[in-house]
Amino acid sequence: MTYAVNPAVNRVEAPPIMEAQTWVRPGLRNRKLLNLCQAVPSWSCAEELDAEVARLAHEPGISLYTDIYGIPELRAAIADHFSADYQGKVVAENVCVTAGCNQAFAAALMAIAKAGDNVILPVPYFFNHTMWLGMLGVEARLISGLGQPDPAEAAKLIDDRTRAIVLCSPNNPTGAIYSPDTIKALFELARARGIALVIDETYKDFRDGDAPAHPVFAIEGWEDAFIHLYSFSKAFAMTGYRVGAITASAPVLAEIEKIMDCLAICTTHISQRAALFALRELAGWKRGKIAMMHGRLAALRQAFGREGLRYQLVSSGALFAYVRHPFAGENAKQVAMRLAGEHDLLCLPGSMFGPGQEQYLRIAFANAEASDMETLVDRLIESQGR
Amino acid sequence: MTYAVNPAVNRVEAPPIMEAQTWVRPGLRNRKLLNLCQAVPSWSCAEELDAEVARLAHEPGISLYTDIYGIPELRAAIADHFSADYQGKVVAENVCVTAGCNQAFAAALMAIAKAGDNVILPVPYFFNHTMWLGMLGVEARLISGLGQPDPAEAAKLIDDRTRAIVLCSPNNPTGAIYSPDTIKALFELARARGIALVIDETYKDFRDGDAPAHPVFAIEGWEDAFIHLYSFSKAFAMTGYRVGAITASAPVLAEIEKIMDCLAICTTHISQRAALFALRELAGWKRGKIAMMHGRLAALRQAFGREGLRYQLVSSGALFAYVRHPFAGENAKQVAMRLAGEHDLLCLPGSMFGPGQEQYLRIAFANAEASDMETLVDRLIESQGR
Repeated sequence: MTYAVNPAVNRVEAPPIMEAQTWVRPGLRNRKLLNLCQAVPSWSCAEELDAEVARLAHEPGISLYTDIYGIPELRAAIADHFSADYQGKVVAENVCVTAGCNQAFAAALMAIAKAGDNVILPVPYFFNHTMWLGMLGVEARLISGLGQPDPAEAAKLIDDRTRAIVLCSPNNPTGAIYSPDTIKALFELARARGIALVIDETYKDFRDGDAPAHPVFAIEGWEDAFIHLYSFSKAFAMTGYRVGAITASAPVLAEIEKIMDCLAICTTHISQRAALFALRELAGWKRGKIAMMHGRLAALRQAFGREGLRYQLVSSGALFAYVRHPFAGENAKQVAMRLAGEHDLLCLPGSMFGPGQEQYLRIAFANAEASDMETLVDRLIESQGR
Repeated sequence: MTYAVNPAVNRVEAPPIMEAQTWVRPGLRNRKLLNLCQAVPSWSCAEELDAEVARLAHEPGISLYTDIYGIPELRAAIADHFSADYQGKVVAENVCVTAGCNQAFAAALMAIAKAGDNVILPVPYFFNHTMWLGMLGVEARLISGLGQPDPAEAAKLIDDRTRAIVLCSPNNPTGAIYSPDTIKALFELARARGIALVIDETYKDFRDGDAPAHPVFAIEGWEDAFIHLYSFSKAFAMTGYRVGAITASAPVLAEIEKIMDCLAICTTHISQRAALFALRELAGWKRGKIAMMHGRLAALRQAFGREGLRYQLVSSGALFAYVRHPFAGENAKQVAMRLAGEHDLLCLPGSMFGPGQEQYLRIAFANAEASDMETLVDRLIESQGR
């Protein structure tokens, strides 16, 4: 090419999932690839959702724009769902519908941070978060994220250019679920220091039990220091419809509205209506799939108890397991490439999720049945044997 | 709010269409508002498209992500359409599907410009373009845009921080169609100076006749200096489905892929399939609607010939008319607010489209039937009478 590209974009590495696909070699082993590289549910969306979309296709106005913020009924339904799920107080005016959680993150971070600013986030992190920060020229300051993030460690990194603490819980890539106390403490830290706690809760529905994931939405004045990001993609297995949400104070949403106007104008209308149907009608369906995922998680944890397995399950939950590989002489990418090329197991190297992660692999097990977990461990053991 | 927002976003004014809606006052005049503020077609999408979406809703995999670039069949179909329509050479590897043309612009400009850079664009301009440039911290350098943009004027503004010349043709807000010679000359200028010509051709299908809108796609090496942006929204009356496209060199698309991963992951799957159907099956339907719009344009031009009308039709084409108002003592916003509040006519003030536009109004007449054009002129004349 003969014209220049933005160096801040050029410096960012390409989406890692695309690269990982190239590691697979069609083998002579006559067995199926176990593809655990992307957090995509193995199940289809509800048949009722298909039927609803088919019905909506004929509805007058479905081919038209909606408000930038999204259709009022969906904003209200999301607010009601959060109010109930977090036992807190969220109103429709706090909610902006987005085309998934990556767009929610992109718009939210652009609304609060500019080039030269910094945000604090635990490592390992979700790579799209740091990709976007890099493109904005916003520095990512890292705290330890294996286990519960430590508010004292975060506090030390805050300076006058710090704009936010960014969390993802349940975490991608580790599956770790941050405790209500941890999240509350980080919220209080953010509020005390005049910055925002931004939390990506794409996987919240896959947590254990029905207790609120955290108490922040129940705190009077949560709007002063909290931005919540959500996705319908995983909970309702509707990744292709692209629906998510940002929940924040109304004045910050007014900034986000400008960004969303330029990025999207609005989220796909029929997708918004599908998400509204999902919230209203598919809670039971969702609970069934979550119970199934809890079964898979139990099977995974049991399989990792196998004698002779030298891979260690460091952390697991929601759709992810974070595994320590046993090879001192190989980095994470070498191990992942070898697993893909020789052992028909595709997962992502920890190094894609930040510095210091060369001993780890991310296994996104939503795409594996409970009965696949023993096969997973078979292949890991197979990879040890040389 | 107690945490800071990004000043580059805060400085950008809110989306003007939202504000304009607030100027309407329910009158005692018992007549309908003539709402000509947004470029939304008054017609619905094709019934065949509704039926296709209903069918697609039941297709396996429709609820899943696509490639970041979009589904291969749609990329190929867009490339084929452009190759035919421009009598040039575009291949699927040049095309990235986006959620509409605003997203196409956002991703393309972020791929080539960073804070402190500048781009050149004619004034009046499409406000979402300068909103996004402002948020990126990219300076907009303005050249005269009433009539054909002058390459010599653009050339004088290029310096070592200039990254692109940005055009919109047929133009929003003026409806002006830039000539093939103008577009070619600006492409040659961009190529000679190592920058990009970025052209938003959302309204290309509404141009006069079937001759190519410009020869750039037929020039060997167009990829070296050309980025083309398109939208399915207006041509196929499917604004709510959110489908557009970026056409550029493969190396630049590789940068855009990273941005799109963070902004969208992919465009809504069912919308992409709907766009594919539109390209394959609805060319005849589209031609019919375009002929109808040409009829409305003729009616508009005829209506503006009415004796006693002191508003002057400066420019018109595609979905837009740019009109000079006759009031020396009122700025454009005052006139537009008066038209909305007292004369049941909603249009946008020229001042929303750049500096020096206080004498102008944008009339987006896609929402008006041919028979409404006399009513439009009636109300303009009514507004003169005091």
